[in-house]
Parts: sequence; structure tokens; C-alpha cells
Amino acid sequence: MNLSSVSRRDLRLSVEELLAAYATCLDEGRLEEWPGFFTENCLYRIVSRENWDRGLPLAAWLSESRGMLQDRVTALRQANVYGPRYLRHLVSSVQITGVENGKVRAQSNFAILQTLQDDETRVFLSGKYVDVLVAAGEGLVFAEKHCVYDTLRIPNSIVFPV
Amino acid sequence: MNLSSVSRRDLRLSVEELLAAYATCLDEGRLEEWPGFFTENCLYRIVSRENWDRGLPLAAWLSESRGMLQDRVTALRQANVYGPRYLRHLVSSVQITGVENGKVRAQSNFAILQTLQDDETRVFLSGKYVDVLVAAGEGLVFAEKHCVYDTLRIPNSIVFPV
Amino acid sequence: MNLSSVSRRDLRLSVEELLAAYATCLDEGRLEEWPGFFTENCLYRIVSRENWDRGLPLAAWLSESRGMLQDRVTALRQANVYGPRYLRHLVSSVQITGVENGKVRAQSNFAILQTLQDDETRVFLSGKYVDVLVAAGEGLVFAEKHCVYDTLRIPNSIVFPV
Repeated sequence: MNLSSVSRRDLRLSVEELLAAYATCLDEGRLEEWPGFFTENCLYRIVSRENWDRGLPLAAWLSESRGMLQDRVTALRQANVYGPRYLRHLVSSVQITGVENGKVRAQSNFAILQTLQDDETRVFLSGKYVDVLVAAGEGLVFAEKHCVYDTLRIPNSIVFPV
Repeated sequence: MNLSSVSRRDLRLSVEELLAAYATCLDEGRLEEWPGFFTENCLYRIVSRENWDRGLPLAAWLSESRGMLQDRVTALRQANVYGPRYLRHLVSSVQITGVENGKVRAQSNFAILQTLQDDETRVFLSGKYVDVLVAAGEGLVFAEKHCVYDTLRIPNSIVFPV
Repeated sequence: MNLSSVSRRDLRLSVEELLAAYATCLDEGRLEEWPGFFTENCLYRIVSRENWDRGLPLAAWLSESRGMLQDRVTALRQANVYGPRYLRHLVSSVQITGVENGKVRAQSNFAILQTLQDDETRVFLSGKYVDVLVAAGEGLVFAEKHCVYDTLRIPNSIVFPV
């Protein structure tokens, strides 16, 4: 994708499509494909809104390369212990907030609904994605993804990527 | 709509518009208009994610023609007994997953919020729509609609179409 | 924006972008910017679905000019007393329902998730936006915004604009 020739609207629609593919990948539990949405030197963080708003660095999850994402997937498949659950992402209000030096800045709202085995479907996490994207072939990938969550009391725990 | 000449993006936007009209029809309780979103020989199913993932056929709701959908609407209006409720659909992450032989395959995430008369608004059902669409006049209609739900413990019961 | 030359689809995408900017403004608590989304002689209402469906005029919130919106913001900043909370809007199923005499009619579904300080993230309000928009410079602003809510038992209270 040539970022210098694409319109702001087409860029928004492309980011929307990327976010849809990303959400579907996670909702269907295809974790092995998840690191492929990122650049090799990516930054992936899950950070509370309190810390984000104050510019504080502490994150619930911090990975600084695609290799670290792959490592997490291996841990989830082979080492971690957790109860089964279904997740469902709702992503909306996608906005392009900037385009410069080959980087696209985008923001969107998310909610994740969680179904545990002995309970109704509940809101697990709400928040916003703050993303930096770069072109890769015909499409886009995440160079940075900051998952900023509103939720102060998380039901159960954050097991899977957001 | 001529499926052979429309771009993948335009198709996605058309499906998004169809899904918006579909959701609004149900949320506003215009049940009599609902079968009009389907072909005459349609397949409409509401199926649990457990059964969907295993390829098992049992569905909570199975209708194999538009006439069966109309029959359900008649039952809802004249025979069934249920408490009043408001529904609100949230549909996102619409994706085109295939186009061939005059058929469009699409997938999207849904959540339905339910308001019963003596309670707060709650998550009623989350899941994904797996749709097969065909051209009809200027637009599209559902030849198949599989409503695959995550929810294991459904609050109250599934009264209305999803 | 020239309403007479823009396609129905482009109009829908423009309204989608306006609604995304509107949601983000409120979710980030930038209340001072909120009246700028409206015309000077705007109508802004938060009305129950029961009253909306019956055509009854009583509203939980009624403002009949941008000045009244600004007055509310001043009250929220300087006079009202309420507990801290995070809000997150989910807006979907945006539809253009009419274009005439320089006015665009649009409708969309919303859900607002609320995080209070001592609780999980919960559904605060679901409903639909019924909007009348007019051109302003390159974009659109709200001449009327009717926030029609389904929710019968509102957790806590409606403090902020919807």
C-alpha cells in the first residue's frame, strides 16, 4: 500500500478491515496467526487508562518485538493454566488521527465480551486502541498497538491478547 | 447488483448496509419485514458455537425457507407468550470471506443487548453471523444466515430472531 | 460539504466519521468541544424509547440551542456533584434515512459502557441516535440529535451527554 497516494477515507476503510481481521483472529482463537499482524520490531502494550492519561509507563502487558508475541503464544499453548472462555470483540469509531513519515496513526473503541463456562456473557474490558501502522505489501501492519483499558475491576484475568 | 463488477470494498460496504437495515428492522420490532431479507429457499439457523466448531447439526432455531420464517412471525404475533423486552444489536467487524458462483460469503461480530422490564440493560447474546448472500435487484439478500452464539447461559430465552 | 452532489454512500461514511469524532470527544471527557458538534439553533434531547414510540414530548434532557449545551458543560465542570466514571461509546449500524432541503436524516445504534470506581464495566445505556445533520464548511454538524434510550433502569444516573 502506497501511503502517499491513498485518500484519508480509503485509509480509514483499510484500517477498519485490518481491525476486523485482527478481532476475528483473536475471537476464533487462531493465536499462532496473531503475531503476523505486527512488524518485527513492534511495540504491543495493554495499559490502564489511568496510566495512559498520566503518561506513566507501567503496563499490564508489554512486548517489544514480534518474537516476544510469539513467546506469549507458546506460553498460552504450552505452559499457562486458565479456564476455557469465549471472547468477542466489538470495534467501532475507527479514526485516522495522523499520517506522516510513512506512519499512520489510528484510534478506535473496543469492547470485549467474555463467556466463561459457568456464567452469562459479560463485558470483560472496554477501552480504546491507539495504533501506529505501516505499509506491508498490499496492506498494513501494526508497528505499535496500545490497548488502553477503562476497566478497573477485571472479571477473572487477562489471559489472551486484547 | 452485479457481483462480477463490484470491488471487494464496495461489496463490504453493501453488506454493512444490509446488516444495518437488518438490525434496525429487528430492533424496531418490524417482524413482518424480517422474512423479506431472505431468499425464498433460504436457510436460517441459530446455532451454538460449540456445535458450529464441531460441525454438529443441532440448532436452537432452524428454518429452511422464507415461508418458515413467516410462520415464526405469525407464531410470535399470535401464539407465543413472552414478557416484553427491548433488543439492541451491535454489529461490527464485517468481512467478505469469499465471492464465487454468484454468492458472497461474509462474516461479522454481533452482540445483542436486552432490556427486560424489571432489570438493567444486559448482554443477551454475543456471537458471529456467518452469511451467504446473493444479488436481488439493486441489493443483496441472505441465502443462508448462521447465527453462531458464544453465550452458554442465555438470560431469559431466545424469543425473537437474532 | 455540498449535499446535492455527494453520493448516498459517501454521505453514510461522512456521518460515520462524524459520529466517531463525537463519541471520542465524549469518551475522552473533552466536554468543552462537545457543543461545537451542533448548530447554534440545535435541538438536543435524551428521550426514553417509551416516549419516543408514542410521540410524547417529555425528555430526560432537553436543550434547544448550542448556548444551552454550553451552559450544561459549565454546570458539569463547576456546579454538579457526581462520582468519577469512565464512559465508552459503541456506535454501529449507521444508516442514512433521508436527504432533503439541505438536511440529512441519519440513524444509528449506540451502547454506552460505564466504569464506576468500585465496580466492573457495565452496560450503562443502549439505544439509537436519530439525527438531523446540515453541512458546515467541509463537514457536517447536528441540527437535531435525539438520543432514544432503551434502558428502563439506569445504573447510577445520566451525568454526561449521550
